[in-house]
Amino acid sequence: MTAKPPTLGRMVNGFDPAAPSDMDERTREDIARRQKLLGPAYRLFYRTPVQVDHGRGVHLYDRDNNEYLDAYNNVASVGHANAHVTDAIMAQARRLCTHTRYLQDGIVEYAASLLPSFGGRIASDGHMMFTCTGSEANDLAMQIAMHRTGNRGIIITSEAYHGNSYLTSRFSPSLGEGAPLGTWVRRVSTPDSYRIPPAEIAARMVREVTAQIEDLQRRGEGIAAFIADSVFSSDGIYTTPVDILPQVARVVHAAGGLMIADEVQSGFARTGERFWGYQRHGLDPDIVTLGKPMGNGYPVAGLAVTHDAVAAFGRDRRYFNTFGGNSVAIAAAGATLEVIRSEGLQENARDVGAFMRQELRNIMADAPCIGDVRGAGLYIGVEVVHPGTMLADPATAARIVNALRERRILISATGHDANILKIRPPLIFSRADARQLCDALHAIIRDGGQT
Amino acid sequence: MTAKPPTLGRMVNGFDPAAPSDMDERTREDIARRQKLLGPAYRLFYRTPVQVDHGRGVHLYDRDNNEYLDAYNNVASVGHANAHVTDAIMAQARRLCTHTRYLQDGIVEYAASLLPSFGGRIASDGHMMFTCTGSEANDLAMQIAMHRTGNRGIIITSEAYHGNSYLTSRFSPSLGEGAPLGTWVRRVSTPDSYRIPPAEIAARMVREVTAQIEDLQRRGEGIAAFIADSVFSSDGIYTTPVDILPQVARVVHAAGGLMIADEVQSGFARTGERFWGYQRHGLDPDIVTLGKPMGNGYPVAGLAVTHDAVAAFGRDRRYFNTFGGNSVAIAAAGATLEVIRSEGLQENARDVGAFMRQELRNIMADAPCIGDVRGAGLYIGVEVVHPGTMLADPATAARIVNALRERRILISATGHDANILKIRPPLIFSRADARQLCDALHAIIRDGGQT
Repeated sequence: MTAKPPTLGRMVNGFDPAAPSDMDERTREDIARRQKLLGPAYRLFYRTPVQVDHGRGVHLYDRDNNEYLDAYNNVASVGHANAHVTDAIMAQARRLCTHTRYLQDGIVEYAASLLPSFGGRIASDGHMMFTCTGSEANDLAMQIAMHRTGNRGIIITSEAYHGNSYLTSRFSPSLGEGAPLGTWVRRVSTPDSYRIPPAEIAARMVREVTAQIEDLQRRGEGIAAFIADSVFSSDGIYTTPVDILPQVARVVHAAGGLMIADEVQSGFARTGERFWGYQRHGLDPDIVTLGKPMGNGYPVAGLAVTHDAVAAFGRDRRYFNTFGGNSVAIAAAGATLEVIRSEGLQENARDVGAFMRQELRNIMADAPCIGDVRGAGLYIGVEVVHPGTMLADPATAARIVNALRERRILISATGHDANILKIRPPLIFSRADARQLCDALHAIIRDGGQT
Repeated sequence: MTAKPPTLGRMVNGFDPAAPSDMDERTREDIARRQKLLGPAYRLFYRTPVQVDHGRGVHLYDRDNNEYLDAYNNVASVGHANAHVTDAIMAQARRLCTHTRYLQDGIVEYAASLLPSFGGRIASDGHMMFTCTGSEANDLAMQIAMHRTGNRGIIITSEAYHGNSYLTSRFSPSLGEGAPLGTWVRRVSTPDSYRIPPAEIAARMVREVTAQIEDLQRRGEGIAAFIADSVFSSDGIYTTPVDILPQVARVVHAAGGLMIADEVQSGFARTGERFWGYQRHGLDPDIVTLGKPMGNGYPVAGLAVTHDAVAAFGRDRRYFNTFGGNSVAIAAAGATLEVIRSEGLQENARDVGAFMRQELRNIMADAPCIGDVRGAGLYIGVEVVHPGTMLADPATAARIVNALRERRILISATGHDANILKIRPPLIFSRADARQLCDALHAIIRDGGQT
């Protein structure tokens, strides 16, 4: 793998004001005005940023009504502007939008509807708690884990992303070198199924986790939790093997720590095979965190937790989030869940995902710059390498992402070297959509990844 | 003041399952089911919790259509189910709901519309950043302050509340003794204008802040920021004197720290006299944090910051919040701002607030249990004391809050001893609403605070 230069505040697939781009004058002015008013911490996607005006289903449209195929947005999971969800938001917003310190039926019904899906200990005696963002969910999960264990140590994978709050950013190395990691945070290797024999990966991670627990204990921190998303998304999307997490759980639990499954990205049917990504691994987590697609864009997130994990926190502390789980958030989440279930979107994710991976493997057969195609459901990674090697080729990956954007197809890249194409469309993506994406990708690669 | 017993996880005006209440069977069942599904960390208001079904203007209604006068909700600032806001939410939700990594006009227009209102350095070269919750806004503000200063020390007032995240809960002592404070957090005395001569308060706070800065420096922490809301809400609502914050700013700035004005509660015209609470003090803050009423219940929050404070953070790091400032959040915030401005709600808050305080002072004249009436605009505190003394009387305050609830008028209590009635209605509260509240309060006090 090639090493990236230090990237203070830069990001994968970020717009670089210093890089050449043939954008029009209006876009240039929009960017300058945005920079002035929103300041230096905001980033845009793509070499030429995309202006968006409206959306429908799997498509976004700019103000000139140009259509973009959205193959990246895992928030609008049941489709942009889904009518069932927007109608539910409207009906509830016109009726009531208030918080959890009054009795309301909706929040309790939603929890009753979702809790059984988690299986294991959470389904049997667990609880749901509501936040507004995945960052808040992971922040709260870790507060609960620290309270439960009396420890502070956190173990993550090498390139993890778990949030933007003070605490979660301290265990999110993918934010870049400008974002400090906590001294109590330990990283274990990416479960790189492309370069490591799959049969060795679980044992390797168990070995590394064990060593890091011992190190945390020697420093008086102990282990509060191991946290990972089950597709290791920002590490590079590693969807197999699926025997890793229960083996890690054994050593984490033995040391008194909790297992947190971050399902902010991989949850709500995206991986196709199971409703929750961790279920592919057969894990029985202590806490499951939820976010992005939960309300199809309405800010709602949260967690599910075993009674044991949260009992002491609930006794000694309390949790209140003014907007978290408010009446409308719950209506949006409920309607989104109804669409996923009634339209069979888990099955669609499984089928269209498998179809797309097969198409991508067909492309790989005569595209030496593609080293690997992997994924589960509609969470797909395509590894871009220097031909004939396993060396990451981030420059070609970036060219492909931007060439697709010029053809109005939106994807991004991920991984330590930003060389893995990240394809993560709404769950309503069809085979025709997948074929459109693959045909464009194939043409671009035949042209040498040039725009 | 009487001391409260340690209150692990309990809260002011919280429902106590162990306390007697004559609630009906259905409410009892609802509470039990909620407890089972949402777990032990959630709390309800009032001795007998309120079930809510719908809302309109300043009123909430239960499922039997009983009407409650909402004199506590500062989220539904322009009124429950305000049609202008819900229409804006609907129109935008049907059009597009996506994030800040694409170019969108709305977010930039909103920032342009709001930034001038902050005055001072922020109006001249500042920026806006968007989160979903006030907790996220304060968490981000403090990350920016720590990055800018290289320091970690935080100074707050004695009973402050600034959020529920890991970091913000560590400088939120009002969460109770079960929520640990950071070792780098220092508290200064409540600016208790009832018990301390007002002319002495600013000097006292400057003295205490100076001493705490010195202590933080000796411990190698230094000062990152002083943060306060300008009405010192959870300290007990102290709206005068208004000469405190600029004097504190002088010593904080001299030591290299930032001044953060937490306007999550006191902002958006609530204090009547000025649009932002800190402007009553004549403060020119480095960061202003926003939240609760910003979208009239839609989860939207954020901050405004001087260019100088955020420049290094923006260079070295980046900020992305999936839902923060999404298309619909901005539409909700824009519509709420339009209503506040077009309906003259700042003036209404000033006028109705002054009227209500006068009515409350009239009650105080023959109610020896009321020691003080204070406030600005529609943020009002009524201090309940043992007659003939300045000793806090939380038991009587709780009786009054619950007696009002029995009469279907919703307020709460605040302060270290929970003896200060907290009246904080939507900004559309009318004189007739104020009179209804005051008449009920007067009757209850005449009856000895019994329900």
